[in-house]
Amino acid sequence: MISPQLNIIGKVHGDILHRTDAPKNYSESEHKGILEIYPDYVQGMEDISVGETIVVLFWFHKSDRDVLKVYPRGDRSNGLRGVFSTRSPSRPNPIAISELKVYEIEGNCLKVVGLDVLDGTPIVDIKKKID
Amino acid sequence: MISPQLNIIGKVHGDILHRTDAPKNYSESEHKGILEIYPDYVQGMEDISVGETIVVLFWFHKSDRDVLKVYPRGDRSNGLRGVFSTRSPSRPNPIAISELKVYEIEGNCLKVVGLDVLDGTPIVDIKKKID
Repeated sequence: MISPQLNIIGKVHGDILHRTDAPKNYSESEHKGILEIYPDYVQGMEDISVGETIVVLFWFHKSDRDVLKVYPRGDRSNGLRGVFSTRSPSRPNPIAISELKVYEIEGNCLKVVGLDVLDGTPIVDIKKKID
Repeated sequence: MISPQLNIIGKVHGDILHRTDAPKNYSESEHKGILEIYPDYVQGMEDISVGETIVVLFWFHKSDRDVLKVYPRGDRSNGLRGVFSTRSPSRPNPIAISELKVYEIEGNCLKVVGLDVLDGTPIVDIKKKID
């Protein structure tokens, strides 16, 4: 079976420094931050516009990958659930998806609002949102 | 810089055999198919329900990863665009996102509608959709 390797295209600069400070997901966040795109990939960010909402895929490098059952949102009252029926950050492939609004673009940096990930989180992809 | 390695959790069985037959995205598809989850990961699919719409991440193993500029949807009339401003399957990390409705669950197989990926496509993650 193949085990593809990801290329990290950039990283997050933001004010969320600890997991306990992170919103549970982007729809609950008003945190601003910067998506720094590395020089090798900067051509790919052309044509992203200010005001646009983009879909961003992150690699949660601090997550536990040996997890198949979780307590959603850390709440033990509802019991353990299969990880694929949740949005837990711990999962076999800890890729997180956020929808973030771009409010400024400066060189290789996209300034966004809606961040729900830790400062320093690696970025693996950015996509156009389906209307 | 880290280069994380993905673990493939399953694969798609469907009737889309050639790229030219694939819908441009899940919102335009009524194709049915099966998401087969491999035994090592089957515990993680517990608590997914029939009738639910799930978010599925695929690895596009046939995509060109050395691409930073693309013609969206293959249409040359609008010129080349930065790949991160599009949903092109060719991109540095060819992870595709679909939202699929589960209509039946049988053992380690989720039967879904809305498929827009080729038969045999590797699956890397399944998440709950944000309401």
